[in-house]
Amino acid sequence: MNYQSVPTEIPTIGPAKISSPVQKKEYNNICNFVHEEERVLLDINPESIMDKIRNKEAVASFEMAGPREKIYFDPSKLKCAVVTCGGLCPGINDIIRALVLELYYGYRVRHVFGIRYGLQGFIPKYGHDLVDLTPHVVTNILEMGGSILGSSRGPQDIDEIVDCLERSNISLLFMIGGDGTIMAASKIADHISEKGLNISVIAIPKTIDNDIFMVSRSFGFETAVEVATQAIRGAHNEAESYPKGIGMIKLMGRYSGFIAATAALAEQSVNFVLIPEIDFDLDGENGLLNKLGKRLADRNHCVIVVAEGAGQKYFESAENSCDESGNIRLKDIGMYLKDVITGHFSKNNIEISLKYIDPSYMIRSLPANANDSIFCSFLARNAVHAGMAGKTKMLIGHWNDYFVHIPLSATAGKRKQVDPHGPLWRSVLESTGQGALKNDL
Amino acid sequence: MNYQSVPTEIPTIGPAKISSPVQKKEYNNICNFVHEEERVLLDINPESIMDKIRNKEAVASFEMAGPREKIYFDPSKLKCAVVTCGGLCPGINDIIRALVLELYYGYRVRHVFGIRYGLQGFIPKYGHDLVDLTPHVVTNILEMGGSILGSSRGPQDIDEIVDCLERSNISLLFMIGGDGTIMAASKIADHISEKGLNISVIAIPKTIDNDIFMVSRSFGFETAVEVATQAIRGAHNEAESYPKGIGMIKLMGRYSGFIAATAALAEQSVNFVLIPEIDFDLDGENGLLNKLGKRLADRNHCVIVVAEGAGQKYFESAENSCDESGNIRLKDIGMYLKDVITGHFSKNNIEISLKYIDPSYMIRSLPANANDSIFCSFLARNAVHAGMAGKTKMLIGHWNDYFVHIPLSATAGKRKQVDPHGPLWRSVLESTGQGALKNDL
Amino acid sequence: MNYQSVPTEIPTIGPAKISSPVQKKEYNNICNFVHEEERVLLDINPESIMDKIRNKEAVASFEMAGPREKIYFDPSKLKCAVVTCGGLCPGINDIIRALVLELYYGYRVRHVFGIRYGLQGFIPKYGHDLVDLTPHVVTNILEMGGSILGSSRGPQDIDEIVDCLERSNISLLFMIGGDGTIMAASKIADHISEKGLNISVIAIPKTIDNDIFMVSRSFGFETAVEVATQAIRGAHNEAESYPKGIGMIKLMGRYSGFIAATAALAEQSVNFVLIPEIDFDLDGENGLLNKLGKRLADRNHCVIVVAEGAGQKYFESAENSCDESGNIRLKDIGMYLKDVITGHFSKNNIEISLKYIDPSYMIRSLPANANDSIFCSFLARNAVHAGMAGKTKMLIGHWNDYFVHIPLSATAGKRKQVDPHGPLWRSVLESTGQGALKNDL
Amino acid sequence: MNYQSVPTEIPTIGPAKISSPVQKKEYNNICNFVHEEERVLLDINPESIMDKIRNKEAVASFEMAGPREKIYFDPSKLKCAVVTCGGLCPGINDIIRALVLELYYGYRVRHVFGIRYGLQGFIPKYGHDLVDLTPHVVTNILEMGGSILGSSRGPQDIDEIVDCLERSNISLLFMIGGDGTIMAASKIADHISEKGLNISVIAIPKTIDNDIFMVSRSFGFETAVEVATQAIRGAHNEAESYPKGIGMIKLMGRYSGFIAATAALAEQSVNFVLIPEIDFDLDGENGLLNKLGKRLADRNHCVIVVAEGAGQKYFESAENSCDESGNIRLKDIGMYLKDVITGHFSKNNIEISLKYIDPSYMIRSLPANANDSIFCSFLARNAVHAGMAGKTKMLIGHWNDYFVHIPLSATAGKRKQVDPHGPLWRSVLESTGQGALKNDL
Repeated sequence: MNYQSVPTEIPTIGPAKISSPVQKKEYNNICNFVHEEERVLLDINPESIMDKIRNKEAVASFEMAGPREKIYFDPSKLKCAVVTCGGLCPGINDIIRALVLELYYGYRVRHVFGIRYGLQGFIPKYGHDLVDLTPHVVTNILEMGGSILGSSRGPQDIDEIVDCLERSNISLLFMIGGDGTIMAASKIADHISEKGLNISVIAIPKTIDNDIFMVSRSFGFETAVEVATQAIRGAHNEAESYPKGIGMIKLMGRYSGFIAATAALAEQSVNFVLIPEIDFDLDGENGLLNKLGKRLADRNHCVIVVAEGAGQKYFESAENSCDESGNIRLKDIGMYLKDVITGHFSKNNIEISLKYIDPSYMIRSLPANANDSIFCSFLARNAVHAGMAGKTKMLIGHWNDYFVHIPLSATAGKRKQVDPHGPLWRSVLESTGQGALKNDL
Repeated sequence: MNYQSVPTEIPTIGPAKISSPVQKKEYNNICNFVHEEERVLLDINPESIMDKIRNKEAVASFEMAGPREKIYFDPSKLKCAVVTCGGLCPGINDIIRALVLELYYGYRVRHVFGIRYGLQGFIPKYGHDLVDLTPHVVTNILEMGGSILGSSRGPQDIDEIVDCLERSNISLLFMIGGDGTIMAASKIADHISEKGLNISVIAIPKTIDNDIFMVSRSFGFETAVEVATQAIRGAHNEAESYPKGIGMIKLMGRYSGFIAATAALAEQSVNFVLIPEIDFDLDGENGLLNKLGKRLADRNHCVIVVAEGAGQKYFESAENSCDESGNIRLKDIGMYLKDVITGHFSKNNIEISLKYIDPSYMIRSLPANANDSIFCSFLARNAVHAGMAGKTKMLIGHWNDYFVHIPLSATAGKRKQVDPHGPLWRSVLESTGQGALKNDL
Repeated sequence: MNYQSVPTEIPTIGPAKISSPVQKKEYNNICNFVHEEERVLLDINPESIMDKIRNKEAVASFEMAGPREKIYFDPSKLKCAVVTCGGLCPGINDIIRALVLELYYGYRVRHVFGIRYGLQGFIPKYGHDLVDLTPHVVTNILEMGGSILGSSRGPQDIDEIVDCLERSNISLLFMIGGDGTIMAASKIADHISEKGLNISVIAIPKTIDNDIFMVSRSFGFETAVEVATQAIRGAHNEAESYPKGIGMIKLMGRYSGFIAATAALAEQSVNFVLIPEIDFDLDGENGLLNKLGKRLADRNHCVIVVAEGAGQKYFESAENSCDESGNIRLKDIGMYLKDVITGHFSKNNIEISLKYIDPSYMIRSLPANANDSIFCSFLARNAVHAGMAGKTKMLIGHWNDYFVHIPLSATAGKRKQVDPHGPLWRSVLESTGQGALKNDL
Repeated sequence: MNYQSVPTEIPTIGPAKISSPVQKKEYNNICNFVHEEERVLLDINPESIMDKIRNKEAVASFEMAGPREKIYFDPSKLKCAVVTCGGLCPGINDIIRALVLELYYGYRVRHVFGIRYGLQGFIPKYGHDLVDLTPHVVTNILEMGGSILGSSRGPQDIDEIVDCLERSNISLLFMIGGDGTIMAASKIADHISEKGLNISVIAIPKTIDNDIFMVSRSFGFETAVEVATQAIRGAHNEAESYPKGIGMIKLMGRYSGFIAATAALAEQSVNFVLIPEIDFDLDGENGLLNKLGKRLADRNHCVIVVAEGAGQKYFESAENSCDESGNIRLKDIGMYLKDVITGHFSKNNIEISLKYIDPSYMIRSLPANANDSIFCSFLARNAVHAGMAGKTKMLIGHWNDYFVHIPLSATAGKRKQVDPHGPLWRSVLESTGQGALKNDL
């Protein structure tokens, strides 16, 4: 893809003139700051980089995340706030904890507030009080899933949110959420600019589906894959234990099938993976039903993994509704496939034993595993560094294995998807042997 | 309860005259056999025992399980078979493995066959071959859930089953299954007697619901409780993370609520437990809906655990259907409650956030945890000891903390349930504070 | 064994005259109290019970644990304290939590204090403050291992302890600890009697070794076995992965080999189990070294589990020292065996690959698994019921599958051990095939 | 660092002229091959890339891994072999399994042999037979830790190894091992060239320490960190539960402290991290002992993580010995620190409670977690793609988040270490607050 069009410049709310308290004298010999010139190329293909340079085009790169020598906010006077929005995801509490610990111990900020129940917490009519976030409050929250602040879905009035920030003297806001939240962060930051306020907004992308554009890994994803793997193992055991046994697991992934595709690779016992990015037929020679029949005839059992957003074409005629966040309510492809498959074999007088597993809430409400905890710790510390330096309208991302600053405008309204020609999907095809489930190619 | 009516005598298929190879000479000083006189009282209350004795009544007791000095079968000529029936349960493979290892290394039996796919495996028309079960085949199956032999539901022709045993020269059959299987074992053993054959039938009770009559603990139950606990934790996280959040978990338990009641005690974050043994109202002052409303008003979140067999009175008018095993297909109380609760609060204009979790297949298809593995090992070894001694028409049970021999007739057709006046339910009431969910008491 | 000599009577500090607040009216129809006549036989063998009765001997039985209709203490005035002593064990925090929740919500006791760092917390010179234990403090401690109160080893002055209780107006003391603590509890209770004070002392036995006399199961043991099993699996992997690989695991068990013997049964990949109760030779035909050599020659790998208290005869000449609790410091049998085995094969020019694993602190510092959590919840609630009823000088035990009251005098100074003739050790012999490791039998 | 000097060219043993069977016709529309021009920059800093180009210097890049359209070997005639060397690491069996499945199902290679017990398996005098590796053999090995092929340490005669390959007609050898193995692979490949044989050698780097030069992530590392985290949690519980409690954990890391530094970030309860890359003093104002004393005085407990290779300067005078692989046997810094710390506080009459945990064998013998399994699957499939394409003298690495081909010469004899100025160590300093443990800076 062409990365040249991706915005990479990070706005600031003012000049960073204060010496950072982060690096105490005793560290000097062994630790340093990140300089603004340290950047990370978007594209790592030497051919295309060379082409750009020959054509005198600019080469796109992101700012490297990390502590700056000079900061914008005076820690002794600063008030910060943290809000968590949307669905649960393993690691939210890790993020909250690391934000508070870095602000408190790293920068000696003494006022960090938690906003209760997502954007609702800004809005007076809901009556949710602010929560004081101190090291004592957050120190033991790692083992808990969910969000100690609570969350909620759906937009709230941007004006009221900014009013709340202003009224509470909050100058640095950390927003943890998915693409809806990134959109809201963008609008909040714009409204702040319009009002001429000096409030910085830093987002930390939260998406269990791993579908934030320009963010190669998002927190909680590895935990989700790990638990999804256990569900697949259960489905495989059910499938193998009965004649013509079918284990079918529905996994999260509204528009992007990363969890389904990745989890399918862990044990390689999956025979069909269905994701939103790849169209599939049910009928016809190459359709799922025919191939499933062959598989059962050959091997007597079969495991199917379906992402929740797959096969939505089968509901096209049905009318759509939306949830409070404005997400289109997807029809349940898992239940649909269960019915279609059961009907198909029943019609053909073949007795099957289909077990359907939908583990979604059991996955998203878990605490993060150790590697996601570590990842969260880096995300949050880097978010603090960026915010303290006066950067705004940005999120902390991960690109080419580095933590980077990404402008909200680079990701808002876009979505990362499984590349049908890339190594992930190729591995799924190799591992499942499912081929193209399409009759006309 | 009155234990006096419980049958306790174990039939044998012939006299045990052969010296057991189990206890090799070198063991003599440190290991011994179980004598037939070693028995375990059914009732451990001294008052009622004294009463019996004063009234010259017999005092009921079970045979203690364990290796006998003399055995009936000649190991060098014996052929054994193992069959696993019904739904999956953690530990089935542990049972298979320990049966094979004890027969092979303990008694030096060289012919152990696995019957494929439950009772189907006996019936020629299904065409499932017997499987040779050797130490090599079973040595690494502990980490796998499910059953390496496969299973199936539903009865098969008893005559054909006994024919198969006779034709294959199998003289010792181990049947792993629930109450349907225990019934089948009873009929098979009766038919064997009628035909004058010397085939012993030993059952090992398998019930993830822990509802076999006169069996205080069944394998897989602790594993099931452990994983159910994780689902409850997830539900609790979901409930706490949203305003007026409700986490509802449906757990296994068709007629007995042991998993639901026990798992609710592990974290004590559950507010309502609904089980088949305890009637509950939805409406009225003491009904679930009113109490749930109060809970949400007071604490803003709530966790409900419902056993699949609870509240079936709400479906009484609906017509019933049965599955292949003849089990009545229960209506889905979880989905029903979800709809009723959602409707109730919607009608009252209270916005709730209800998350419904149904982890059943993810639980039953797991491998056993370490303690269940150990328990399985004792069950299986004791089953082998009993079978080799020529005992038949019995199952291996656990009573007052001892492994015992229980006649099939003692449990077939009955069911263990949660005692509304016993310590388990009392603890649930203490832990949840739910009180009686009934308007007329 | 002869249970007739075991004391079974539980002292009280006064008559229980106050109606218990535990059972609220709404429960009446579905829950009841435990009556004092409900008891549990120590011996469940019908033969020996009959013999006793024929001989007009008393038949020993324990009081059944559970809530009483009448209590001694007035909840509105009562102050309670909780202390945790000795080594860590999975489940201590579960016990603390359930004690507090039952006292607070069940009996409406409003003053529960935590004593810091074991018996040290009673002694002024250490300067440890009391901790207020409220539901808020304990609600989220389940996921944490260790003890939130802290612990310490060693005795403290009994007089000072009783002074502290008196000075703080504490009338009900819960002591969580092992045999040293049970001894201390006994002395404290005696001193209280001597001083004519109305202070009740209830112990909850804590022993990861599962070696408290007359207590069939103690909390944390199943968790310990579960994790020990993982260490064994690791040792087995190491052993199998190298030519003549030996995996040796040292497990806890100073005087009793329950963890070693039980964990060895979980996977049945262990070839030798060495425990304090069973003597073994190193040299000679039946000695460990010769049998190990044969095993390596035959199968090329071997797994050995050794309890820390096994083979202490090899250190007899060495002088002994004691730790602060007065426990004799055992010589390290694991390191000793490692050296002996390495030397033996080196002398015989056989190259082996021995890996030694000592997981003890990784086990005892864990949080309890779900089943231990549930067990802890029952122990603690029953301890509260007993204490509120005015019972004293007792501990909560588990016998023949029931929770019972056991006088401190029944267990203090004695120890439960693995019965060389019982089913546990018999199963170890069957599973390992190790035979007697003795030359003269 | 200057990446320009890193070799990046991959040798081949001949032209790839055969059409790959991997991509069957039905895949064509949705899957493609990797072209030789697809490469990954070593350096992703745009500044330095620009500099290179302005200076007309070449810009270093690695070949992208993945399936090629044309392959060198004829699958129907090819014989492959797999060997696993050195210490255990989570994921070895995942690698073996994915190699076999890709060769068998992807390329239809029918002859894959396993070499037993590392390089020993090539040498006739050890008498280890080759093992046939078929899908059936490997399908269920994922849950097992260790290596199903076995391993061994130490070099073997290169000539004999190549003879064995030639004699067995093996043309494609996969070597799984650490830096010793990579050296051996290099020598074997050179000897093959000298003898004019057409045998390809592909290495898959195995290092639980994550210290292979130019390889950003190696398999098993995340699993190791996850389990190390549990050990740290245990140490933390021990430390908090006793007055002046110290929990000390020794973790793997002979020359590189990645596990210690990374695991310390997961829970952020660690106070001191000691790694080989960072010198530290024991005595003096900034020395460990003084800072530890302050920590205990302030907070009453402390957690120390020490990598096995840290502080080797304290053993400088001691003579060194080597293990069979030629690794210098490190002195045990953990035991040394334990003694020094105990002595220090004893001398100062301060009673501490130090618990020392060394979990190494419990970590390395584990099966891989789900994310490492997936990573292994990618590594192994890419190794097969590279080998089938006729590439040799290379390993499969991971760089800037891509799988790449790295010449053996780029990594052999070098080592990756924790950068004292990089984000990992900076985060450790922020999280621990330990500062520089040096008196002269």
